[in-house]
Amino acid sequence: MTADILSTDDLAFLLYDWLDVESLTEHDRFADHSRDTFDAMLDASRTLAHTWFRPHMRASDQDEPTFDAEGVHTHEAIAPALRAFAESGLTAASFGEEHGGVDLPLTVSRACFAWAQAANIATAAYPMLTMANAALILAHGTPEQVATYAEPQLAGRYSGTMCLSEPHAGSSLADVTTGARREADGTWRITGTKMWISGGDHGMTDNIVHLVLARTGRAEDGVKGLSLFIVPKFLTSGERNDVVLAGLNHKMGYRGTTNTLLNFGEGAHTPGGSSGAVGYLVGEENRGLQYMFHMMNEARIGVGTGAAALAMTGYLESLDYARSRPQGRPVGAKNPAGPQVPIIRHADVRRMLMAQKTYAEGSMALCLYAAHLVDLAATSTGEERRRHELLLDVLTPVVKSFPSQYGPAANDLAIQVLGGAGYTRDYNVEQFYRDNRLNPIHEGTHGIQGQDLLGRKVLMQDGAGLHLLADTVSETVKSTALLFPEFSTALADRLRRLLEVTGALWQDGDATAALAHATDYLEVTGHVVVAWLWLDMAFAAEAAGSPLAEGKRAAAQYFFTCELPKVDPVLERLGARDSLLNDLDESVF
Amino acid sequence: MTADILSTDDLAFLLYDWLDVESLTEHDRFADHSRDTFDAMLDASRTLAHTWFRPHMRASDQDEPTFDAEGVHTHEAIAPALRAFAESGLTAASFGEEHGGVDLPLTVSRACFAWAQAANIATAAYPMLTMANAALILAHGTPEQVATYAEPQLAGRYSGTMCLSEPHAGSSLADVTTGARREADGTWRITGTKMWISGGDHGMTDNIVHLVLARTGRAEDGVKGLSLFIVPKFLTSGERNDVVLAGLNHKMGYRGTTNTLLNFGEGAHTPGGSSGAVGYLVGEENRGLQYMFHMMNEARIGVGTGAAALAMTGYLESLDYARSRPQGRPVGAKNPAGPQVPIIRHADVRRMLMAQKTYAEGSMALCLYAAHLVDLAATSTGEERRRHELLLDVLTPVVKSFPSQYGPAANDLAIQVLGGAGYTRDYNVEQFYRDNRLNPIHEGTHGIQGQDLLGRKVLMQDGAGLHLLADTVSETVKSTALLFPEFSTALADRLRRLLEVTGALWQDGDATAALAHATDYLEVTGHVVVAWLWLDMAFAAEAAGSPLAEGKRAAAQYFFTCELPKVDPVLERLGARDSLLNDLDESVF
Repeated sequence: MTADILSTDDLAFLLYDWLDVESLTEHDRFADHSRDTFDAMLDASRTLAHTWFRPHMRASDQDEPTFDAEGVHTHEAIAPALRAFAESGLTAASFGEEHGGVDLPLTVSRACFAWAQAANIATAAYPMLTMANAALILAHGTPEQVATYAEPQLAGRYSGTMCLSEPHAGSSLADVTTGARREADGTWRITGTKMWISGGDHGMTDNIVHLVLARTGRAEDGVKGLSLFIVPKFLTSGERNDVVLAGLNHKMGYRGTTNTLLNFGEGAHTPGGSSGAVGYLVGEENRGLQYMFHMMNEARIGVGTGAAALAMTGYLESLDYARSRPQGRPVGAKNPAGPQVPIIRHADVRRMLMAQKTYAEGSMALCLYAAHLVDLAATSTGEERRRHELLLDVLTPVVKSFPSQYGPAANDLAIQVLGGAGYTRDYNVEQFYRDNRLNPIHEGTHGIQGQDLLGRKVLMQDGAGLHLLADTVSETVKSTALLFPEFSTALADRLRRLLEVTGALWQDGDATAALAHATDYLEVTGHVVVAWLWLDMAFAAEAAGSPLAEGKRAAAQYFFTCELPKVDPVLERLGARDSLLNDLDESVF
Repeated sequence: MTADILSTDDLAFLLYDWLDVESLTEHDRFADHSRDTFDAMLDASRTLAHTWFRPHMRASDQDEPTFDAEGVHTHEAIAPALRAFAESGLTAASFGEEHGGVDLPLTVSRACFAWAQAANIATAAYPMLTMANAALILAHGTPEQVATYAEPQLAGRYSGTMCLSEPHAGSSLADVTTGARREADGTWRITGTKMWISGGDHGMTDNIVHLVLARTGRAEDGVKGLSLFIVPKFLTSGERNDVVLAGLNHKMGYRGTTNTLLNFGEGAHTPGGSSGAVGYLVGEENRGLQYMFHMMNEARIGVGTGAAALAMTGYLESLDYARSRPQGRPVGAKNPAGPQVPIIRHADVRRMLMAQKTYAEGSMALCLYAAHLVDLAATSTGEERRRHELLLDVLTPVVKSFPSQYGPAANDLAIQVLGGAGYTRDYNVEQFYRDNRLNPIHEGTHGIQGQDLLGRKVLMQDGAGLHLLADTVSETVKSTALLFPEFSTALADRLRRLLEVTGALWQDGDATAALAHATDYLEVTGHVVVAWLWLDMAFAAEAAGSPLAEGKRAAAQYFFTCELPKVDPVLERLGARDSLLNDLDESVF
């Protein structure tokens, strides 16, 4: 295989030609940066991906974590990779100097991190969670909490987790029952069980910092009775906290990441003689979910980027195979003993490659666009800042879900390009397919994203978010009308119908009727948004005279010809708001 | 889990209420049968599936075949399952009494076999190949070949393989280079390497009968220079033939099935002192591919049925989960501490279940319909027989491809219904998803099915096959016009457009231009065909007063509302016959 893990050229196009991240350096916050410093980070990430992440991707999939009386055993190559990652400065990169970072724009740091995700998403999950955990403590913790729990994470000595789900409460956080009890000394004791905790136990860092959602209020308060706690595996005294691994989940993919069932306060350890795991409240009581949601946009960009990175690396691997594998002859070739042609010459293989290209590059564009909104918000104020934040809010469910849906679809096509070979473990594409299948599940399932988009995001501020999105898409419609008149018209048409359909779904404010269509609504919005980005990219590539311009134009043409029209029958149905799913009697299944 | 492996009720509906297989017993060939004998075979198959096939499904996936100097080691539970299967009489069931069978109609025997496929598709692959192999020898071999190689397979003492692909020639059989040389005694010596041979080596039967496609003609003759040979692992003398296992493929799924690279005549064994593996010509020289194709329709029904069976078993497992898993509350519920509801109450979960139901039951209906055409052909003569064969010919690519595409899609939704649990190996759905991913690849890839449909089947006999299909669909359109007027009209409309589009694609006979759209054409045809079957089933259920009628009606409504309209934008594009894929310069990827 000569395929690279990601396309350096495509990332450079997205960052510089399309999003113009260099202009971020005009702002104080990023003033120390330049294209050179960005490129240096990207190069370092690529090297790290090749040297430390990809080589054990297959091995740590085969040899998944185990545990015994001594603790959890992870594949031997993972810990060195995590050390190399931390030493490269990437964990702290997007944070300020005071925390050991270099204030790298999030757009660039997400592109850097995409190298690690593409190379080995299971190993990359550890630093991803660690960065999210540290960011949350930085945002809402006390200076002491930052020094004790966030900074060691940014330095790579500790790692972090997010403990939300419970065995009986996956998507339904209102039903969290893990409890927290305040002690006389101001600390808390946490009791309960958390499920699906990635990175929940291992011996690869000096400590593990759990951020635990637990109930301080009454059950009737639902999510409003939840608070957030730091619950470290080891207390600062060195004593073991009462956090006990109850089991490891054995997954289809992402197998290098330990995924755990954790018991808090089951009595195996009783620090200070009082029952319950010792926890420290973050911020104020009963605001736990708010703090979590505060990080959700970035976390969901991270999931989307991982799905996009797997889609891209699978695309590149199947493209390389298609260029080098001879098989069959052109349609109409008369001589069966004539030379075979590389399979990229067959129309159906081109179809599978072009679909992958549009899903993969479109997904990566979407995620970096979203990360760029974070950077734009961070470098602006007042109304301008609010607009960037609002657009990010409304786009977030799409940023999480489109790559999570079409990333696996791309990997499915990568397998198909390789045929029988793609189904074997001699090639990587089957693992990409297995790994990527997690992405529509974690950090809010696909269905939850639909509820978030149609049930919250398009309603907030009287629809201001959706209208801002529409205005932003319309700018592209206008600017591309001369160069790409057909695509511009096609996009404007679908945008108009999406807005009409939104109104039709909410015509009488009946949430039960509207939300029955939430997933379809999410998916058509995703297609309209990604069509918009493809048009915008094709235009930018042309304007910049990019060497990728022809490829971007071809991909845009493919997406507008073969993908965007798929929304039409769905929009028509949404407009009619049928009650089919709500009306079903359960006996019909 | 209380879910059954398949739905006894649904199979009974398909066989008796819909296809009326009892009327087959009016013909001499099936005269010894009755609904009682069919039900007895179905019951035995269900018991076999529960007792011998499902229990080791997970274990033989985890503990895949290995080989060493002693040979191939398969999971210990597979050999007893194969023995139990043979002892039940199922291997020989659809063959005549003279071969130890009971002349079971293929429709019933496929339904019986679906139990084994749903329970454990990897273990079921051994008898499936064995039955296909024996059938081919029965059809084209000499009486001696039948006695020596077919009958021991039907009795379960031998097993069989199909050796077509080679490392450099997967889909492109014109490039087969394995050679055959005639010896003075009339036997042949085979030399070459075959790839992807399922069941290619193991020690679970007394002998393995390879059916090998090898070149007796010149390379320039392409597929016309290929002949078919019986190449047994052990000669009748007991001596080892020169067939050597060169490697086992390690797959994503179907892991209980050994999948092999086999060397023929590499010199490890030289029976009779002459180099090459000893082979026996089947039928006439240079007609090997014809013989293989003769079996192809049935083999492809078998693959389709396997994909459908996995879809159904995954559907039933996720349905059971959805009924028993409490999570969340109805939209608009005010009290967050109120009782949770089973997730089947959520519209999005119903959507995922209903989509699975239409894919799974629709796929199974399609496969049994095709098997029924085989039975109808076998019990008719002259023009009537030719019509059944023609309809089967034109439908075969759809029978193979629709279940292979939508079976995995159903399993994907089954995982999503279970959420995080579905991604773990604690449930079966992740294995169904991995196992089912092979089906769009083997027995002719998805792309090859498209070429077969648009490039051969719709053209044969001046389009007679397509018109016969259209007439058959039109009968349903007419008969359902009163009871289901909307669906009837919708189906008629799509059928008309499909025929128009077929004409547009072939307007100037330019195969390069037409076949660039072959896969999309295959997929829209699949949707139109399955919509037809759903309408036909809903009507039959109503007419029969079936207790399943409400479910069939709801599923038909779902398919006509949410699935069939998806063909519209694709039909529109096919009608325009754009040259997008052919025009692409390879540099754009």
